[in-house]
Amino acid sequence: MSDAIKKVVLAYSGGLDTSVILKWLQVTYNCEVVTFTADLGQGEELEPARAKAKLMGVPDHHIYIDDLREEFVRDFVFPMMRANARYEGDYLLGTSIARPLISKRLVEIAHETGADAVAHGATGKGNDQVRFELSAYALDPSIKVIAPWREWDLTSRTALIAWAEKHQIPVPKDKRGESPFSTDANLLHTSSEGKVLEDPWEETPDYVYSRTVNPEDAPDTPEYITIDFERGDGVALNEQAMSPATLLTELNTLGRKHGIGRLDLVENRFVGMKSRGMYETPGGEIYARAHRGIESITLDRGAAHLKDELMPKYAELIYNGFWFAPEREMLQSAIDHSQAKVSGTVRLKLYKGNASVVGRKSPNSLYSERHVTFEDDAGAYDQKDAAGFIKLNALRLRLLAQRDR
Amino acid sequence: MSDAIKKVVLAYSGGLDTSVILKWLQVTYNCEVVTFTADLGQGEELEPARAKAKLMGVPDHHIYIDDLREEFVRDFVFPMMRANARYEGDYLLGTSIARPLISKRLVEIAHETGADAVAHGATGKGNDQVRFELSAYALDPSIKVIAPWREWDLTSRTALIAWAEKHQIPVPKDKRGESPFSTDANLLHTSSEGKVLEDPWEETPDYVYSRTVNPEDAPDTPEYITIDFERGDGVALNEQAMSPATLLTELNTLGRKHGIGRLDLVENRFVGMKSRGMYETPGGEIYARAHRGIESITLDRGAAHLKDELMPKYAELIYNGFWFAPEREMLQSAIDHSQAKVSGTVRLKLYKGNASVVGRKSPNSLYSERHVTFEDDAGAYDQKDAAGFIKLNALRLRLLAQRDR
Amino acid sequence: MSDAIKKVVLAYSGGLDTSVILKWLQVTYNCEVVTFTADLGQGEELEPARAKAKLMGVPDHHIYIDDLREEFVRDFVFPMMRANARYEGDYLLGTSIARPLISKRLVEIAHETGADAVAHGATGKGNDQVRFELSAYALDPSIKVIAPWREWDLTSRTALIAWAEKHQIPVPKDKRGESPFSTDANLLHTSSEGKVLEDPWEETPDYVYSRTVNPEDAPDTPEYITIDFERGDGVALNEQAMSPATLLTELNTLGRKHGIGRLDLVENRFVGMKSRGMYETPGGEIYARAHRGIESITLDRGAAHLKDELMPKYAELIYNGFWFAPEREMLQSAIDHSQAKVSGTVRLKLYKGNASVVGRKSPNSLYSERHVTFEDDAGAYDQKDAAGFIKLNALRLRLLAQRDR
Amino acid sequence: MSDAIKKVVLAYSGGLDTSVILKWLQVTYNCEVVTFTADLGQGEELEPARAKAKLMGVPDHHIYIDDLREEFVRDFVFPMMRANARYEGDYLLGTSIARPLISKRLVEIAHETGADAVAHGATGKGNDQVRFELSAYALDPSIKVIAPWREWDLTSRTALIAWAEKHQIPVPKDKRGESPFSTDANLLHTSSEGKVLEDPWEETPDYVYSRTVNPEDAPDTPEYITIDFERGDGVALNEQAMSPATLLTELNTLGRKHGIGRLDLVENRFVGMKSRGMYETPGGEIYARAHRGIESITLDRGAAHLKDELMPKYAELIYNGFWFAPEREMLQSAIDHSQAKVSGTVRLKLYKGNASVVGRKSPNSLYSERHVTFEDDAGAYDQKDAAGFIKLNALRLRLLAQRDR
Repeated sequence: MSDAIKKVVLAYSGGLDTSVILKWLQVTYNCEVVTFTADLGQGEELEPARAKAKLMGVPDHHIYIDDLREEFVRDFVFPMMRANARYEGDYLLGTSIARPLISKRLVEIAHETGADAVAHGATGKGNDQVRFELSAYALDPSIKVIAPWREWDLTSRTALIAWAEKHQIPVPKDKRGESPFSTDANLLHTSSEGKVLEDPWEETPDYVYSRTVNPEDAPDTPEYITIDFERGDGVALNEQAMSPATLLTELNTLGRKHGIGRLDLVENRFVGMKSRGMYETPGGEIYARAHRGIESITLDRGAAHLKDELMPKYAELIYNGFWFAPEREMLQSAIDHSQAKVSGTVRLKLYKGNASVVGRKSPNSLYSERHVTFEDDAGAYDQKDAAGFIKLNALRLRLLAQRDR
Repeated sequence: MSDAIKKVVLAYSGGLDTSVILKWLQVTYNCEVVTFTADLGQGEELEPARAKAKLMGVPDHHIYIDDLREEFVRDFVFPMMRANARYEGDYLLGTSIARPLISKRLVEIAHETGADAVAHGATGKGNDQVRFELSAYALDPSIKVIAPWREWDLTSRTALIAWAEKHQIPVPKDKRGESPFSTDANLLHTSSEGKVLEDPWEETPDYVYSRTVNPEDAPDTPEYITIDFERGDGVALNEQAMSPATLLTELNTLGRKHGIGRLDLVENRFVGMKSRGMYETPGGEIYARAHRGIESITLDRGAAHLKDELMPKYAELIYNGFWFAPEREMLQSAIDHSQAKVSGTVRLKLYKGNASVVGRKSPNSLYSERHVTFEDDAGAYDQKDAAGFIKLNALRLRLLAQRDR
Repeated sequence: MSDAIKKVVLAYSGGLDTSVILKWLQVTYNCEVVTFTADLGQGEELEPARAKAKLMGVPDHHIYIDDLREEFVRDFVFPMMRANARYEGDYLLGTSIARPLISKRLVEIAHETGADAVAHGATGKGNDQVRFELSAYALDPSIKVIAPWREWDLTSRTALIAWAEKHQIPVPKDKRGESPFSTDANLLHTSSEGKVLEDPWEETPDYVYSRTVNPEDAPDTPEYITIDFERGDGVALNEQAMSPATLLTELNTLGRKHGIGRLDLVENRFVGMKSRGMYETPGGEIYARAHRGIESITLDRGAAHLKDELMPKYAELIYNGFWFAPEREMLQSAIDHSQAKVSGTVRLKLYKGNASVVGRKSPNSLYSERHVTFEDDAGAYDQKDAAGFIKLNALRLRLLAQRDR
Repeated sequence: MSDAIKKVVLAYSGGLDTSVILKWLQVTYNCEVVTFTADLGQGEELEPARAKAKLMGVPDHHIYIDDLREEFVRDFVFPMMRANARYEGDYLLGTSIARPLISKRLVEIAHETGADAVAHGATGKGNDQVRFELSAYALDPSIKVIAPWREWDLTSRTALIAWAEKHQIPVPKDKRGESPFSTDANLLHTSSEGKVLEDPWEETPDYVYSRTVNPEDAPDTPEYITIDFERGDGVALNEQAMSPATLLTELNTLGRKHGIGRLDLVENRFVGMKSRGMYETPGGEIYARAHRGIESITLDRGAAHLKDELMPKYAELIYNGFWFAPEREMLQSAIDHSQAKVSGTVRLKLYKGNASVVGRKSPNSLYSERHVTFEDDAGAYDQKDAAGFIKLNALRLRLLAQRDR
């Protein structure tokens, strides 16, 4: 399999697994390795990754460490939120939406450094391999992709650690014992799966959660906030304008404090099996509810219902890794078209796991008190119109009933 | 408009409005009125309705008071829940799903009593008139429907009360002052709209809620429950078998206690305007989450995703009053077909407004620890298959990229 | 009903019906009437309409006669064709797509002339009233719409003619006997319905057809043509560049000659009843097939299948009159996004009612002989990838089968 | 790869390719081979397959030759036709729908004979391998599938023939020269692809067609026929009752004579590439049009439009090989539910490639002359109802326009 790879760009976290991969690529493919470490808001120091890469012989100009937080939220999270996307009814797609951006940068760096391949640390059982690779191929059809987990014979953690030690890769003490679960994190969410979570009947132990306090430990008094939207995107928190990534960061702080955004889910992977995951999306959950809130007064019914009908497919596309596919872009066009007037302010109440919309206002509001009032509406609406409306909507049902009775 | 009505069956609550309608039908159409009062679990005494009807001259054999609670939950609420139906992302359709049953009974009583018309107390601005009438016409295409609110000239509450007094209809003291909002209730939910709720920026005052305690006043310790499902329907609570209506009643008690199921929503009415509603669906919210939970381990991905794609249309059909339409029945066929193996147990944690699925198990589980494990899976899954899977999924994207770059 | 109309713009064909309406508006509403006659390619002289309007006292500056053929094809027909829209599987929406343009111009003229209303000659039973009025209201929410057929008491043709004679409106001789059917025509199609067509078991008599020769009388030798597309729209016929309306006109000539585009259909009207229509869409049928042909080599599967899934809804929106609705515009955004590379040439064979695509080529072709060949493909495609692809697609089905057997 | 196969059931046509496979299985896997030859109406003698199998040492009791024509049409073609399924707008899925039946029988025979594997002759580039294998796995999750074309190294026709000669497999003379295209045939259709068809700009040569006369050579006078339907399925031709397979056979004869059902298509394969195919579906094309014809008067609009919206997904599922998947079964439930009243008679005109519905009648007709007439309808329909119908449909558009102008 090691044919002709000269240089490979590795998505490198600095952790044990990708460090083993780095070394494995060097010894197996006998090729140069470029490391790419992205700051997506996962909340970890990135400089240690640089040091480790150096230690394994990666030259300075082949070590890329990029802060992608603003691009992540602005060009990936927010467009997805415009669609109110939730996979299988609940999951806010926190891992899925980060993968295409990482792949995009991997391919760009490959082009900058003249690399002929990219590599990632996702296993052969999960969705992430698909997301990484579909994105990479869509952006460069001739790129090669190396997925060590599908190639090597390190089929257990013990084997991995033995291999690491044999190759002088420092193994952190706490990695020797099996980690109790596997995680992914970025500015939108933290996910955990595997190990103690593998029995879907067992409640997720509290120590698995890292991004939110237990709702039982959250403040006993509610907190009210406002979020302002412009053309479908959040632009301010409590009347203070802020960038996309800053807004999401602030919402994460609020969500963490109030225990918002925990989700325990059995989901269907694209590769065909079910898995049980635990997600924490504190700021994202607040944001998603706020976005629906502002849409509720600014979107016409036709647009809103079309969006609801398209959403499951849109979410599935992102989950399955088809961000850079034409059908995702087509749906995005339709969704973005609908957002031109989705501006205004939403007020939310945060309290022990709940993020509830309690008010919404907009210069573009389609809500008409004049029409809806139970009081005299001064002719805005002629109730007699409803008779004809019903009669013609009923006509086909009556013809059916005449036939069938 | 008073042509030729000899006998009309009125959906009669015993309240002021339908009492005025009863009288108005008698004096305007000079016809016999049959009253029909349904127990749908709204939590009100029904015998006073009998007394009032008698008082207005309705003979005993023309007064129908029926307990429809089991039929309501078994044949309407549960089938809808199998679809995970939520209108506009959130609303559990508590009012919408009751209307077709009332209409069905109105038409049946019309046939039993030889009546040529049915009448209801819904206004000309709302959805309920549509739901009542589409259902009635679908069940009897030659039935006549009288909607007094669209016919008479009582355009204000004052006018209504004056008319009532003029016709010796007792007006309850508290009805003289304007009620602060309009409500509907049944075993599934209570809704409120109008009046103090008409400004969607103003938070719903706490006194509007009647079916749930404020989450802030709910118990400080969580409560765990289990719900058992058979073929898509709930059959037991905490391992105790119970009928559909009993199960929902018990869940309502639990939901009330823990402040679950409050929803403040601006929604799009079928008649074309937006309205702001407040809904309390304590037991329904718990049930809906539990149903998704049991599906998550027993439904195949293909079935689950198809259901998610069909759901918005299904919910819209119910909201718009098309329960007795062929397309709703077609969707129900598809949905019911998917539920054959949706059996098992869901465990939920109830706590201050949250109803979270924390465990699920089933003899029909499709979740396979063997496949999903990060450990050695003894050959259940060959990670190398993923390479081909990705390659062929990527092929079209690569052909596109070759063309477009 | 005659409250406060000062000036009304009438969609005026110059025929008997709209002449009666012109006069009826004058005498009933005692208002000024502005006439608007559109050349949509219906193939009739328009100047007689001017003479008739003058005769009925409409001043010169209130007589509008506009050639809208290019706008019609460019901004309405072609965008619709990009979607491959067919209502109920077959109907190319020839009447439906013209109505919004007429309404747009009616409203524009109302604004130019200070009119407060528009009027049209569509009956109260059909779809056209809906299309005219939804479009007018969407473009000017305060415009008034007068639909004389729903207002007056001229319920039979005899009554209409008597009224005409009483008001000195010349009645063409052949209009005295009942016309055997009702027609609509524009550059896209001619439709006929009613009268002799009312029994759906009876074959449409040949004299009903006016835009196409009977296939049995068409040439005995096939004719081959090419159509060039740029970004989803036709731009040339047989390598000769031409404007949208010219292209459609030329295709009509070809389609007429070869008996192409006849359709006999029972369809479902928006107002709730079924009707039987006969349509002739000679050029449109050829164009529609050619468009699918060019898409077949230039559109990716994901885009193509999404378009196919969205099409029925898109067609329904146009049929029902929702051209100027946000959901139609959203769908158009998605569709238009897909057309960026839909350029190239399609070759068709025209023969006795058939328009068959026999060849297609494009600089943007995604068809890869290298991939598809049964011969040695030099490594373009690794057949072994298919094994993994199938294995993972099968995984969920195998898990199901393990459970269910 | 040859681990542990003891007995394999091969889908065996008796032709060169599957004869080579038979021998290859024997020598490569050193296992018993059971041959299964299905009569699906492909119009070839099947007994020669028996002789050839014997010649290669297959014992009598391991040679299965089954007439599956009635099962094929009744349980596969007709259910699919109820959905009006056409892949990518045109293709009637003639190959796709036969594969699941063959797999079903392969698995049954495997169970009967104690075989542990099935084998097929589909290549690694096409859809058929996917269809065979998904069906097999869905019916028996532990069955093994052998796809020789993906395993062996016979990558050219020359290599295949050399291998055949080396193993004493008789090579028909005309197979030595490359066949000009690859075909599949059954009672529903014949398909051809590859070779001379590989350039999508070149017209399909006439000698590729085998199931239909060239329309130019078809009779100069039209032929009229009737088809009767019961509950969505064809039951009689020209008033003569016949079985499903007989009906389709007779329609094939008619379609052949009149040159009906030729299709030249570039389609998107599930494995990711485009291919160009030529299809002849003479009887199927007539049947498909007739089915839409009978639905047009017996299906309600809501049912009809839902079917149209679901169809592309349903067709894609069949094309991709997911016949035995739960989501296909769910859609089938919905579709079948709609067919309860789809009974009656359709009259068609067959003429030189055209199969046009010219009449339809049914005891269950929903078409109401009384409602649709331009004449006085005696009160069946009140045109004034249309005013209210339009007003309320327009309301949301007017609120939008008020906001946006």
